[in-house]
Amino acid sequence: MKIARYSYQGAIAFGIVDGDELVVLTNDPMFAGFDTTGDRVALADVKLLAPVIPRSKIVAVVSAEAFVLRPNTAVVGPGDAIVLPAASSRVEVDGQLAIVIGKIAKNVSAADALGRVFGYTVATVVTAADLASGLAGAFDTFLPLGPVVETEFDEALSPLRGLINDEEFQALSLGDDDRTTEDVVAALVAFASSVSTLLPGDVILAGPLDTPADVVDGDTVTVSIAGIGTLVNPVVRPA
Amino acid sequence: MKIARYSYQGAIAFGIVDGDELVVLTNDPMFAGFDTTGDRVALADVKLLAPVIPRSKIVAVVSAEAFVLRPNTAVVGPGDAIVLPAASSRVEVDGQLAIVIGKIAKNVSAADALGRVFGYTVATVVTAADLASGLAGAFDTFLPLGPVVETEFDEALSPLRGLINDEEFQALSLGDDDRTTEDVVAALVAFASSVSTLLPGDVILAGPLDTPADVVDGDTVTVSIAGIGTLVNPVVRPA
Repeated sequence: MKIARYSYQGAIAFGIVDGDELVVLTNDPMFAGFDTTGDRVALADVKLLAPVIPRSKIVAVVSAEAFVLRPNTAVVGPGDAIVLPAASSRVEVDGQLAIVIGKIAKNVSAADALGRVFGYTVATVVTAADLASGLAGAFDTFLPLGPVVETEFDEALSPLRGLINDEEFQALSLGDDDRTTEDVVAALVAFASSVSTLLPGDVILAGPLDTPADVVDGDTVTVSIAGIGTLVNPVVRPA
Repeated sequence: MKIARYSYQGAIAFGIVDGDELVVLTNDPMFAGFDTTGDRVALADVKLLAPVIPRSKIVAVVSAEAFVLRPNTAVVGPGDAIVLPAASSRVEVDGQLAIVIGKIAKNVSAADALGRVFGYTVATVVTAADLASGLAGAFDTFLPLGPVVETEFDEALSPLRGLINDEEFQALSLGDDDRTTEDVVAALVAFASSVSTLLPGDVILAGPLDTPADVVDGDTVTVSIAGIGTLVNPVVRPA
């Protein structure tokens, strides 16, 4: 099931993707379940928003023993601009699978970890490569998420493809010969929960997957995960 | 004015400290103003809680050009245990002034920064000194805050005193001969707002002020700021 958060006629709502329509939900399904209003809207008529705004934290796992937090104020949605900050002259992007937590998790085992996941979305992880690590990912607009949250796990979440304009800079898989994508996701959730209690809406970024690529004013970044969808964001440097 | 967040007879509420009583507020004054219910409760009858739970971010400024984010799941209140994690064998504490944001702030000047501050509280900033930086401060219980939020700025917020058990490990001032405490606070808020949009409830930690001190199981950490109050937390290593 693919869940969208969107604005339509001035209001923000959640819906389930059904072909080229959205089945409108009464509220955020992460907290309110999947009650439907009985209405439908055409996908073409809405503006998709970031499908989740974390209330507690976004954890970017940078190695087996380290992570960096990103602020929820960095989150933007599909089509929103990635704004290059004046403080940086070298900004990079990296496509990543974003794991959305659905149930509280503390010190969960890898075996129990997937049961705490609400779903999965696509992240374009933006970093000011010339700034110190905590600061580098904290800028507003530095975490596009979307276009939807896929609630079912599938190995089709594994292959990821990234483009800058028309040029591919990433084409890879989260899993490998040794570990399935499911194993990687479970290990990440278990590790993060061994440090901080994970709350519904928390996001864990499953990366970095590859060498990030530099972006400049005027670029368009496109990241696709087959099982979820395609996230497109323009890059803008304010005058 | 000193604002407390507390639990009393099973419910969480906010109140204004008036001598040894609390004037009960209808709701969180950061969002709802200072409406009173007409009730009073004795301070001695309530359990004080962390006076703020940030909804967006906690920014620990580590130098003029760097900061580290801490998760809101690390926040505990007065009297709550600092729990030493199994993953670390060297945990340090540092008393800091915590600045609580009250109004949205993006790219504010130092001159405008204080107008975005809701108030000030005491932080005991706990760090696993043997772990990587993003991880080191992310553990549950690693950010005691309290006992209250003081909404008026006063240079009496400057001197800070820290004790481990009965031994003083910090006695210092946020301001110095070159800059008042007010100048330091304004510069920190302006800097943080140049990176991330600051939202009501965000906390900016004004430190590190000094070399932190190691703590072990059984210690008690006491941090006092004259204009706010005293924050006391025991240190526990689970069996």
